[in-house]
Amino acid sequence: MAVLTLRSDDFPRWYQDVIAKAELADNGPVRGSMVIRPYGYSLWERMQADVDARIKAAGAVNAYFPLFIPESYLRREAEHVEGFSPELAVVTHGGGKELEEPVVVRPTSETVIGEYMAKWTQSYRDLPLLLNQWANVVRWELRPRLFLRTSEFLWQEGHTAHADGPDAAAYARRIALEVYQDFMVSVLAMPVFVGRKTRKERFAGAINTLTCEGMMGDGKALQMATSHELGQNFARAFDIDYLGADGARHLAWTTSWGSSTRMVGGLIMAHGDDAGLRVPPRLAPTQVVVLPVRDDEKVVATATQIADALKAAGVRATLDARPGLSFGRRVTDWELKGAPVRVEVGPRDLAVGNVTLARRDTGEKITVPLAEAAARVPALLDDVQAGLYQQALALRDSRTADVTSLADAIEAAATGFARLPWRLVGDEGEARLAAESLTVRCIQNADGTLPTGTDDTDDLVCLVARAY
Amino acid sequence: MAVLTLRSDDFPRWYQDVIAKAELADNGPVRGSMVIRPYGYSLWERMQADVDARIKAAGAVNAYFPLFIPESYLRREAEHVEGFSPELAVVTHGGGKELEEPVVVRPTSETVIGEYMAKWTQSYRDLPLLLNQWANVVRWELRPRLFLRTSEFLWQEGHTAHADGPDAAAYARRIALEVYQDFMVSVLAMPVFVGRKTRKERFAGAINTLTCEGMMGDGKALQMATSHELGQNFARAFDIDYLGADGARHLAWTTSWGSSTRMVGGLIMAHGDDAGLRVPPRLAPTQVVVLPVRDDEKVVATATQIADALKAAGVRATLDARPGLSFGRRVTDWELKGAPVRVEVGPRDLAVGNVTLARRDTGEKITVPLAEAAARVPALLDDVQAGLYQQALALRDSRTADVTSLADAIEAAATGFARLPWRLVGDEGEARLAAESLTVRCIQNADGTLPTGTDDTDDLVCLVARAY
Repeated sequence: MAVLTLRSDDFPRWYQDVIAKAELADNGPVRGSMVIRPYGYSLWERMQADVDARIKAAGAVNAYFPLFIPESYLRREAEHVEGFSPELAVVTHGGGKELEEPVVVRPTSETVIGEYMAKWTQSYRDLPLLLNQWANVVRWELRPRLFLRTSEFLWQEGHTAHADGPDAAAYARRIALEVYQDFMVSVLAMPVFVGRKTRKERFAGAINTLTCEGMMGDGKALQMATSHELGQNFARAFDIDYLGADGARHLAWTTSWGSSTRMVGGLIMAHGDDAGLRVPPRLAPTQVVVLPVRDDEKVVATATQIADALKAAGVRATLDARPGLSFGRRVTDWELKGAPVRVEVGPRDLAVGNVTLARRDTGEKITVPLAEAAARVPALLDDVQAGLYQQALALRDSRTADVTSLADAIEAAATGFARLPWRLVGDEGEARLAAESLTVRCIQNADGTLPTGTDDTDDLVCLVARAY
Repeated sequence: MAVLTLRSDDFPRWYQDVIAKAELADNGPVRGSMVIRPYGYSLWERMQADVDARIKAAGAVNAYFPLFIPESYLRREAEHVEGFSPELAVVTHGGGKELEEPVVVRPTSETVIGEYMAKWTQSYRDLPLLLNQWANVVRWELRPRLFLRTSEFLWQEGHTAHADGPDAAAYARRIALEVYQDFMVSVLAMPVFVGRKTRKERFAGAINTLTCEGMMGDGKALQMATSHELGQNFARAFDIDYLGADGARHLAWTTSWGSSTRMVGGLIMAHGDDAGLRVPPRLAPTQVVVLPVRDDEKVVATATQIADALKAAGVRATLDARPGLSFGRRVTDWELKGAPVRVEVGPRDLAVGNVTLARRDTGEKITVPLAEAAARVPALLDDVQAGLYQQALALRDSRTADVTSLADAIEAAATGFARLPWRLVGDEGEARLAAESLTVRCIQNADGTLPTGTDDTDDLVCLVARAY
């Protein structure tokens, strides 16, 4: 009997199965909420550490703003309040009393951060002001799905203020490319299309939204992270202005950008197979699991030595000699959890001085001399990292169709992405796509690069897909 | 004119001044909330990283549980709901509708984590279950004080389940000593009294509460972290039981333990002086600031070289050559922020091949040959670390009086800690202390060590103080 529903039978159910069996998360007690279990959290923790380092390398610093926001703040930017109103959680009672003014639980922090940016931004010397925070946010969800859409989720949200529009635009772009895309490609081993959103799909209050769109194993798209140019909309609403070198006051330009626990969902759906999760080595909390085939003293001692040698070499290795669990059961467990490489240490192999290395990406097994085992691992991990990327890229290529009409796009998007000239879609086309539960995921230059600006020039293409 | 209120004039106001001038935090828009500014957050971030590593070394793993808890969960443990009811924030509306059952914003997560521990704890093989989470919690505050008491604060909360009472007790003790006390002593450079709370001062639902109590610059106590044995109270309320090796079902024993952004407040008040914060080198985000005295090409070039050499040697060094800010102003800034060591590079010193090293803990300045500057820094940082600890210890010793009556304790506690035999206090004595705004901070063995168990033996002593 298969441990999981097959992906080809029922992809959404396979997804739920992986989350349950790999012990990634549980539904929380309040509808739409999520408990992130230790293994799921270890994936997020490692994503966080890597993204955080990239954010700092881009010059931003971390801060922390309050969970509770006065309702009045959200109302100051018209599109923003309209976008978020249906999703708000509202606190009406605190400390045993009804509050004079109800407060909302932050759905995102543009407004409260805008208020403080206005205080901190006095002169052009204070700009750019580059802030980031790691926090939980709440958007009430009626149709929750673990990691993808939950009423509460964890994320980082960057908020920056700049002296002029070009500087703000360049920074939003830098975050999309250097922080998000590069992280996804080089750590998550996920190819992503980076483009700009259509006017209709922009963030509430933005003048331009950049997005990284990944393809999942079922051909659907997942928005993995976004970076927004907010123009002067929030600066105007919150009086974020500064004294220029010219002695006059100027309104600042702001950006915001975020990535969330949703990336864990993307990781599962992009790399998972019918045996479970497959975690790219650069992300994996356990890169190598060392499994004694039998509960035999010599076998366990050898397995322990190998695990120790790997750890000493800086590999994240785990010895799994859990008593009372058969070898087969332990293999299944680590396949579910997606450990990139298994070292299997058995008495027969050992009798001739060998151990077996198994790759999670291809299932391939190789027998190597015991003395070489630890030394072979680093290159193997690089191979798995590259292998997962290549498989994801091959899937995406095979399921991305270049088409020349909206009708063909609708057909192709039933199983993957359709790419076509943006001028064949436009606002009207978007409405037609919406009727088919399809969206324009992003607009790109014809060569696949991220367009500058928001002009609808004739050479632009767009990607159409079903999406999570 | 002094930059700050003098500590001897008005300690609470000095505290607020430091927070404002060193740009540590601001009041949030909703009463009782706090904005943690980048410099304040960088202190917290470094505390987090160190405490997190210690928690992991103690075998616990991180997870994440929901912000919103059904009200009914809190009611399941009688003392717990009584303890937290007056402080709860309640969400009554979500997604544009009134909720059928209001949910509370977690004031702490014993209840929701208890619910999941019950699911995950099946057999004795699943124990101990050692969980931790980094999260925000909300306890409505009528008299907020930044970092010390805010309606929302950041913390880690550990929650563990064990097969028996002694194992739970040993783990709660291990956390108090190895994670909290050791971190405070060796990183924060703060001596802390570790003891158990009196019955009256225990956490709501605990059978024993261990605490780390620090002395602030005004002689008052601050509870820096606590570790609770919860006995079987929560296990009973949430059915956390397991199948023993004996084939019978047993109720588990649980613990919980936490440390929070309050530690930033403790750091300020324990080490701060009339010039601002003093950050111990092991914690300091900037251990050394290199300051060119003048905006002169050669001076700035030399300062840059020194900063680079320090960074290359693994020192967290910052070059501050901000244009338009006088040398004096930059010195004042870094004194406020408490950077442990300043390297001052001036043209006169440089002419004879020297630079000046200034210690923040003592104010001492030494002139050293330029070529030796970078090499001298690591030992100097060790000296500052030790120096701050010694100063804090000397203050605590000078303000801790051994007394032999409750009346003397009340007198001594006006300016510091009073230590006296616990049998001279007891439940009645605590009531008398409360009338004087004093509390028993903790109970210890006569030799200052942490008592095992909760028996009121004759050799125990207790510490009495005013407290934050």
